[in-house]
Amino acid sequence: MSQPPAADLDPATGETGNKGSRPQSADVSSNLETGRPRRTTVQSDIQDILHPGNVRINVQGAFIVDEEQPGTPQSEDYEHDPKDIRLPNHTAVVSHVAVDIGGSLAKLVYFSREPGDDSIGGRLNFLKFETDNIDACIEFMRKLQADHKQNNGSRSDELCVMATGGGAFKYYDRITEALGVEVIREDEMECLIIGLDFFINEIPNEVFTYSEESPVTFTPHPPDPPNIYPYLLVNIGSGVSMIKVSGPRQFERIGGTSLGGGTLWGLLSLLTGARSFDDMLRLAENGDNSTVDLLVGDIYGQAYNKIGLKSTHIASSFGKVYKQKRAAERDAEDGCNGDLKRREDAEHVAGSSELPHVPNPFRPEDISRSLLYAVSNNIGQIAYLHAEKHGLPRIYFGGSFIGGHAQTMNTLSYAIRFWSKGTKQAYFLRHEGYLGSVGAFLKRQPRNWGRRESFVELKGSA
Amino acid sequence: MSQPPAADLDPATGETGNKGSRPQSADVSSNLETGRPRRTTVQSDIQDILHPGNVRINVQGAFIVDEEQPGTPQSEDYEHDPKDIRLPNHTAVVSHVAVDIGGSLAKLVYFSREPGDDSIGGRLNFLKFETDNIDACIEFMRKLQADHKQNNGSRSDELCVMATGGGAFKYYDRITEALGVEVIREDEMECLIIGLDFFINEIPNEVFTYSEESPVTFTPHPPDPPNIYPYLLVNIGSGVSMIKVSGPRQFERIGGTSLGGGTLWGLLSLLTGARSFDDMLRLAENGDNSTVDLLVGDIYGQAYNKIGLKSTHIASSFGKVYKQKRAAERDAEDGCNGDLKRREDAEHVAGSSELPHVPNPFRPEDISRSLLYAVSNNIGQIAYLHAEKHGLPRIYFGGSFIGGHAQTMNTLSYAIRFWSKGTKQAYFLRHEGYLGSVGAFLKRQPRNWGRRESFVELKGSA
Repeated sequence: MSQPPAADLDPATGETGNKGSRPQSADVSSNLETGRPRRTTVQSDIQDILHPGNVRINVQGAFIVDEEQPGTPQSEDYEHDPKDIRLPNHTAVVSHVAVDIGGSLAKLVYFSREPGDDSIGGRLNFLKFETDNIDACIEFMRKLQADHKQNNGSRSDELCVMATGGGAFKYYDRITEALGVEVIREDEMECLIIGLDFFINEIPNEVFTYSEESPVTFTPHPPDPPNIYPYLLVNIGSGVSMIKVSGPRQFERIGGTSLGGGTLWGLLSLLTGARSFDDMLRLAENGDNSTVDLLVGDIYGQAYNKIGLKSTHIASSFGKVYKQKRAAERDAEDGCNGDLKRREDAEHVAGSSELPHVPNPFRPEDISRSLLYAVSNNIGQIAYLHAEKHGLPRIYFGGSFIGGHAQTMNTLSYAIRFWSKGTKQAYFLRHEGYLGSVGAFLKRQPRNWGRRESFVELKGSA
Repeated sequence: MSQPPAADLDPATGETGNKGSRPQSADVSSNLETGRPRRTTVQSDIQDILHPGNVRINVQGAFIVDEEQPGTPQSEDYEHDPKDIRLPNHTAVVSHVAVDIGGSLAKLVYFSREPGDDSIGGRLNFLKFETDNIDACIEFMRKLQADHKQNNGSRSDELCVMATGGGAFKYYDRITEALGVEVIREDEMECLIIGLDFFINEIPNEVFTYSEESPVTFTPHPPDPPNIYPYLLVNIGSGVSMIKVSGPRQFERIGGTSLGGGTLWGLLSLLTGARSFDDMLRLAENGDNSTVDLLVGDIYGQAYNKIGLKSTHIASSFGKVYKQKRAAERDAEDGCNGDLKRREDAEHVAGSSELPHVPNPFRPEDISRSLLYAVSNNIGQIAYLHAEKHGLPRIYFGGSFIGGHAQTMNTLSYAIRFWSKGTKQAYFLRHEGYLGSVGAFLKRQPRNWGRRESFVELKGSA
């Protein structure tokens, strides 16, 4: 990962931040430096806290920290998201952890104190596991459970485990057995909404718009207008769910598509030999889709002005592949040296040893970019049509598919602007992958939750 | 191609028909046997003729013939559609030919007399060429031109060539040069609409609905209700165009998607080694998408009842591929014998010699079915949303992608029923690939068109 610019030095710690491949523009860094609101406490701070769910977390002054927490456990089993959320005014020990187990990824959220710091405050930590590797995720929770017992010593009570997503049902027995505690299951859609409302209402520098001209532009905090409803949530994981939200906990799944992250990852793993999602995104960044996509200009030799289609408009994704593949096969059949061709490809193309025997005339970079465009444009159009049908002006994109990838966000934003003729706006989140797990974390008050009073006392000192 | 059942004997010729892989149910054959309306001529027969365009063709008693025309030229350069349309009451020699040149296919329509039969009547002939092979298409037109001169002898006038589609612009010079006549270019969308209106209004046993329970069910002819507007045309070629039609020649392109036939053909040529669209469809017919698609049941271990998603609902197309491909790669890295695995695949899987080196755990059949579902479902959902937005109850699917393929039509029909909760209906056509070329054929009155009078005389004798 490239060395971040000096502007990204964290004002508090002096450590450089912005780890990971998220887009970091001048906007971000400058915004990050002003990441801690210094406004005086108002009653709404306390009230707001109750919105997202029943767990009372004092989010006053909450902000995102971009540096790795010292002593953060590292492992190849999971990816620790560098963007922890610090809750400087929170004291109550939140004694639970929440996991959102989807078709491809399990997203884990838990609260931790500053290491070696008994003062108030702590962090929400964000981790990703591959769902195939669910045992590593369960083992990690077991370790949290052990630490939790140790740290809280006498006044220890059970670590409370919240689970959502399909895996909360599929792996229910495995988790309860391993942890020896009851796992509280929550509805996936409801958790997504509670999590999103929390990020929109409570976390500054979380929600942003994206465009080529002004890449990452954070929305005002607190939200303006204060009434954030109604909106459309488009959650892009392996598949895509589109959820209409009319108010707190008022939601309806109005659509979706099976063409999501799983489709992109699956097809690109077969077509490019890329072995990770990051590899695929890197390939896409260096690709030129016009070598595989059939453009309006390829069909017309010009633009189709009568209906306003530019010559660069994609008429057919992968529309050039069939012809050229057949041509290559005819060459091979005519005894031209396919193997040699393939070796030549192999020399300049990563992973082309994964490609079919018959020379594949396409660069993995170009294939990746074409498919990324196809999937993103498609989601954008369907999202717009649903938002239009239900009169929803704001469209929030969540889910691990986006991964803060500039090209993806740009394509989704462009699609929404294009189809809505600028009447609708796409919004993104820095914790887009954790809506469900944060929602589960916030939703349910754990058993034996005896801190309402201690929390109330707090209010005085706040 | 399989021998058609006896029921398909053409009542007129005694020849067997229904060549090609189009769905042929009991409905069809029984309908074919009554293919020639015997109702008495009414004024509307004459009036109707004027609807589709300016070329006056006497379509009274027009019907589809399923047998190959004796002496029909055969070549590997093109595919002669066996479903010619016979115009038994047409005398005027229509001295022109029309071609619709798209991104992948060039569709040709021309009129011919019955060979060795100087009596009245003749046929509309339908041919397909690969656009890459446009020279063969041009050469065929040159031959038609020569025959036309010969047959019409003294009273010969130039063969008039109508062209539409992107290729009408891209290949304009090439065609005019080769034929030495002026090529009349027509707008693609307008031709599609004129062609579709012609098929709906003039040709019995042309338009049908499709469902698993009653595969091919022809709509009444003449259409009921007689007012066929407004409707949505979804034209699926390499890419997809969605056109709102409010009345004769009143249309607007309201949407489209780049995920069309070109996407399916391109990806499957890379993934399955299939070398023709028919191969791909055959593979799909024998496939099981649940081995590559991530189903709701795979994520939940059950249905997601709260939002009514069946456990068999496709959550993510190709959603199982990435995990299993990675697993196979890890095996290979662990030194397990990938080559042996691949040979085993090769034994039971057509074209798997085309598959990547690392063992590909997926059958081309399953991949083909999954992608066919993904593309068709996606087009169906977007078509529904556009029809919904513009209040269009009827959705006609045209374009060469469909190719009369049962699975494709079933998926499109199902998607429309599913999303519209049964309020909208999908319609298909037996000449779905020729809307544009027939529209071009009908649209423009050729120069020196001196037969209006001879046609008017005809009316008396009709």
